[in-house]
Amino acid sequence: MASVRGRAVEVPAAGGEFRLVEREFPDPPSGHVRIRVQACGVCHSDSLTKEGLWPGLQYPRVPGHEVAGVLDAVASDVPLFKVGQRVGLGWHGGHCNYCEACRRGDFILCANGQVSGISFDGGYADYVIAPANALAFIPEELQDVDAAPLLCAGITTFNSLRNSGARPGDTVAILGIGGLGHLAVQYAAKSGYRTVAIARGEDKAPLAKQLGAHLYIDSTKQDPAAELQKLGGATVILSTVTNADALASAIGGLANGGKIIINGVPEKEWAVNAIPLILGRRSIVGWPSGTGMDSEDTLNFSALSGIKPMTETYPLEKAAEGYERMMSGKARFRVVLTTGA
Amino acid sequence: MASVRGRAVEVPAAGGEFRLVEREFPDPPSGHVRIRVQACGVCHSDSLTKEGLWPGLQYPRVPGHEVAGVLDAVASDVPLFKVGQRVGLGWHGGHCNYCEACRRGDFILCANGQVSGISFDGGYADYVIAPANALAFIPEELQDVDAAPLLCAGITTFNSLRNSGARPGDTVAILGIGGLGHLAVQYAAKSGYRTVAIARGEDKAPLAKQLGAHLYIDSTKQDPAAELQKLGGATVILSTVTNADALASAIGGLANGGKIIINGVPEKEWAVNAIPLILGRRSIVGWPSGTGMDSEDTLNFSALSGIKPMTETYPLEKAAEGYERMMSGKARFRVVLTTGA
Amino acid sequence: MASVRGRAVEVPAAGGEFRLVEREFPDPPSGHVRIRVQACGVCHSDSLTKEGLWPGLQYPRVPGHEVAGVLDAVASDVPLFKVGQRVGLGWHGGHCNYCEACRRGDFILCANGQVSGISFDGGYADYVIAPANALAFIPEELQDVDAAPLLCAGITTFNSLRNSGARPGDTVAILGIGGLGHLAVQYAAKSGYRTVAIARGEDKAPLAKQLGAHLYIDSTKQDPAAELQKLGGATVILSTVTNADALASAIGGLANGGKIIINGVPEKEWAVNAIPLILGRRSIVGWPSGTGMDSEDTLNFSALSGIKPMTETYPLEKAAEGYERMMSGKARFRVVLTTGA
Amino acid sequence: MASVRGRAVEVPAAGGEFRLVEREFPDPPSGHVRIRVQACGVCHSDSLTKEGLWPGLQYPRVPGHEVAGVLDAVASDVPLFKVGQRVGLGWHGGHCNYCEACRRGDFILCANGQVSGISFDGGYADYVIAPANALAFIPEELQDVDAAPLLCAGITTFNSLRNSGARPGDTVAILGIGGLGHLAVQYAAKSGYRTVAIARGEDKAPLAKQLGAHLYIDSTKQDPAAELQKLGGATVILSTVTNADALASAIGGLANGGKIIINGVPEKEWAVNAIPLILGRRSIVGWPSGTGMDSEDTLNFSALSGIKPMTETYPLEKAAEGYERMMSGKARFRVVLTTGA
Ligand SMILES: [Zn+2]
Ligand SMILES: [Zn+2]
Ligand SMILES: [Zn+2]
Ligand SMILES: [Zn+2]
Ligand SMILES: [Zn+2]
Ligand SMILES: [Zn+2]
Ligand SMILES: [Zn+2]
Ligand SMILES: [Zn+2]
Repeated sequence: MASVRGRAVEVPAAGGEFRLVEREFPDPPSGHVRIRVQACGVCHSDSLTKEGLWPGLQYPRVPGHEVAGVLDAVASDVPLFKVGQRVGLGWHGGHCNYCEACRRGDFILCANGQVSGISFDGGYADYVIAPANALAFIPEELQDVDAAPLLCAGITTFNSLRNSGARPGDTVAILGIGGLGHLAVQYAAKSGYRTVAIARGEDKAPLAKQLGAHLYIDSTKQDPAAELQKLGGATVILSTVTNADALASAIGGLANGGKIIINGVPEKEWAVNAIPLILGRRSIVGWPSGTGMDSEDTLNFSALSGIKPMTETYPLEKAAEGYERMMSGKARFRVVLTTGA
Repeated sequence: MASVRGRAVEVPAAGGEFRLVEREFPDPPSGHVRIRVQACGVCHSDSLTKEGLWPGLQYPRVPGHEVAGVLDAVASDVPLFKVGQRVGLGWHGGHCNYCEACRRGDFILCANGQVSGISFDGGYADYVIAPANALAFIPEELQDVDAAPLLCAGITTFNSLRNSGARPGDTVAILGIGGLGHLAVQYAAKSGYRTVAIARGEDKAPLAKQLGAHLYIDSTKQDPAAELQKLGGATVILSTVTNADALASAIGGLANGGKIIINGVPEKEWAVNAIPLILGRRSIVGWPSGTGMDSEDTLNFSALSGIKPMTETYPLEKAAEGYERMMSGKARFRVVLTTGA
Repeated sequence: MASVRGRAVEVPAAGGEFRLVEREFPDPPSGHVRIRVQACGVCHSDSLTKEGLWPGLQYPRVPGHEVAGVLDAVASDVPLFKVGQRVGLGWHGGHCNYCEACRRGDFILCANGQVSGISFDGGYADYVIAPANALAFIPEELQDVDAAPLLCAGITTFNSLRNSGARPGDTVAILGIGGLGHLAVQYAAKSGYRTVAIARGEDKAPLAKQLGAHLYIDSTKQDPAAELQKLGGATVILSTVTNADALASAIGGLANGGKIIINGVPEKEWAVNAIPLILGRRSIVGWPSGTGMDSEDTLNFSALSGIKPMTETYPLEKAAEGYERMMSGKARFRVVLTTGA
Repeated sequence: MASVRGRAVEVPAAGGEFRLVEREFPDPPSGHVRIRVQACGVCHSDSLTKEGLWPGLQYPRVPGHEVAGVLDAVASDVPLFKVGQRVGLGWHGGHCNYCEACRRGDFILCANGQVSGISFDGGYADYVIAPANALAFIPEELQDVDAAPLLCAGITTFNSLRNSGARPGDTVAILGIGGLGHLAVQYAAKSGYRTVAIARGEDKAPLAKQLGAHLYIDSTKQDPAAELQKLGGATVILSTVTNADALASAIGGLANGGKIIINGVPEKEWAVNAIPLILGRRSIVGWPSGTGMDSEDTLNFSALSGIKPMTETYPLEKAAEGYERMMSGKARFRVVLTTGA
């Protein structure tokens, strides 16, 4: 092994502009690997790094937590991985193995958990050095640009749904058809749920159906809660939106015993009325993406079921442009940077 | 069988005064029984009847949904019950058997479910006529005045806890030591949970310990969320209070993966911040008492474990006085009316 | 309402020959309905009636517990159903509402549960009189001949799978491709499981793939346990076979924490070795079909997902022939009797 | 740090006699600790080491997987533990962090999992060198001789019960009152289960009651299955016996939906009849002790609830005598070796 040179797109300081730089990427230390990046998804959460919204961020910092690539170097104490294998790295950037959550095997809640592109330099680069315990193998069937967005937008929704307790045939509503939602609809449909997509505008109806939704609710013309109740209520509503009011009003669409799972962070707090929760034994549940193994399950399920993200690609050197496109909300639906490797 | 005469304490109209009357109690119709009431607990929810806060209430109406008594008459199409058996009747006042919830066996969420003392005349009386599918057998070991409050305050907390997913040794906090809370603390302790009682004032500490709490937090001097986090966080917080702010702030005391279960109806809506829910995979859950069989489980567990409510008794004819005592918040902790039967 | 005349194919005595008779079908008593049968599946369990293998069977008896038809008469105390609605009746032939299982809402385990075609006359007839609490609505999308086999072979496998705890992407193996298995493979695939079909002979491989299986194991050439372990082990194995040795040896294919669910009754006892159960936290689980509501869920999921049984139809008057075909094991895969109604 | 000298009781070869030797205990390597042993329980499974029944055993080998002691040295890359802390080491002797089970956080099923006293030298010694990821902290309230047996006999039964799905008030039967059973009865009772102890002979009845059992069945005079059914059936039967026939016949005592959990390894295979499993939705489940964190939960629950093993102590140099006592079946109920440290 030896250090390698490559490009990186770093944020020099909180709120600063992206800057393309050349860097040395040293050999991975104990428990780590070095990944030759092929593709890296751009996520709204990259703004945490860009704008300095995460406590304790140190700059310069390279964002990027949807990394697909090939192992370039592996520390000698990492038995599982070999140079040349295709791996993915998501939001979960490694865990400590010693905190209580880790000792319980609940790595995603590690008290010392790292976040890719926040705790260490991420995937807007030719190389990433990352903890081995954060990785997922990428199955052959998936291309890098398709795998990348699944490592954050994909895993978060898939992992929420598969652990939701919903059973095949149960009614599952996906609130929002965007970066997360357009994947969630596919996951829900391929999991055998009676899938209801909810979004703004009639123009999204054909897409929703194409993604596998059995039903579509246009929230600009219909009251989602009322429409869901006409269907018997939703066993699960997966909220991918940031609109707190939309989330709050959707709760009225839950079936008896139903739960709303929050993936998208609402832009503000919202008021909860306990009575429908109590009378209908309903719940409000938060869900925090998943581990490397969860990512691997997500990738494998996507390959098995033919699920892909819809993407727009930008070369690494146009990372700033790709990021702007993503933040503008106009991307359909995920932006992916490619290194050309 | 034949109709019988007896006393009843009825509410003549929404907001009216209690009125002691003599009534004829006819033979129970198909699927029903007539109970000779021995004891009936007074619950805060009786104010729904007293003040007309439940939609569609018809007057005069006799409140009372914590009824312990003896079967006095049983319809011929009810195979399970026999005259002379001791039975209890709680909040759940019978289900329809034909709605979707009933067809799924989830009777407490019956779309046509009745509520004792609201949908039909309840236990502030010498007799109650009730659907047989709402009843619980009372075990020998329990006296009527002890059984009565368990049929609402008891079942609600016990059923919430036993279905919470908490395991023996897990930390369970009970928010509030009142009518519900003083039972919840006992149930939690006898279920092997590491039980934390949270209430206002240092003077409740000895009682909490006596009820079985391993730890006590005085919320007037300590921040419950911070104190719970020092203990590792609560797997379950059972909220029995009506103070929405107390409930909202307690959520910060949840462990990773923890849930707050709402038993007491908060007096207002409260603002939820999604971030701690998402980051810690936490949830907010409503819980609606239980069925006749759940009541029976509650009574049996109480008998097995030696759990009793703390009560103040009033004769039926002093129901108004007992009700005032309960509503004043001064009762320690449940008021029970006795018929002298 | 009034009684109606129609045909029935009855078994005159244990081990006797089928006999086509004309009968009077009276008005349904309290809690019951009369169904105009359109189609009735023939199931191996019909031999219980034919051969008198069920304790307490009274003759003559009409077999048939996969009944699809139209409501012809409804007792006045049955609020849910209306004459003219399409309904299905399966193995579960009604429950008592008063035993402990019923009071817990667990109707399929009713201590007084009836079985269609065993406890009362079943669907080898123009009409069936059945308890209303056993029925399922049939969705428009399903034809009668397709719905019928789903009411036993379908519900048993679907209900086992959806309650198995398997999640989308998990490996689920179906042991046997016959009447139950060819449906189970479809249910597993449409539920998003990585579906492995196991059967005897290479010739079933194309069918297995066509039904949705991702992988096929020919148990005459390969060791299913070893092949499953190469795939990482099965989270769930659903056994639809009667061959006890096949079942016993398949257990070795379970993943850590996996379970084998038994649908088909093995023809004999088999020897269990506890060590692989203990070391791998594995389990052996029995599963008993489901309720009317479970049937309804099965039918709805089948309609949603485009799942159909493969059937051979016989007119009612050729019931004996159809039964022989079924018992011969040559049917591909379910035999359905039609009344021509 | 530096190596230390101390005694060890080693088995020189499969089937050989115990031999007290003096040894050098080197500094712990990466990821390991050295424990100054205070007490070590003797377990029937120590015969695996003594008699060479575990595949691949290398000799000489020091048995002992119920180790309570004080940290004597800690590798520099182990952040959690400090010299001087009291820790316990059980059957689980560390996991690899990289196999699929480990990546899922399910350490007890690690494909490369080690077993204390089998994979490496165990607690029949003054010192043990062990992987840090196998350890549990011992709470102050527990003495070493009490903590030791909880690290195998305790954790196995407690972990089985708390993950069994049984809820407070449910009927839980403990089959066998021996080393495991006398702890299981205590755990069951303190978890709020209606606890039924089953053993051979009327003379064990007073002990069973003293340990907290609500009911006792003498299997020499009564049929356990029939007696359990009189009580409504057991939600859970925890089998701690090695008598396969006793286990097999107890299955008949399961309630609807009940499960038998196997802790004790039966001395032979037993024949399973699938019909009662299917008709009653019952299951047979294996359970493999637990991780270091599970041990810690066990110790904490024991301290919280006042649960202790009944023990007979022997000084380390009399290990052979203590082992014989244990294997004779006459010990009441666990033998513990003490080092005098
Ligand atoms: Zn950690
Ligand atoms: Zn992201
Ligand atoms: Zn209902
Ligand atoms: Zn109440
Ligand atoms: Zn029943
Ligand atoms: Zn059948
Ligand atoms: Zn491992
Ligand atoms: Zn042991």
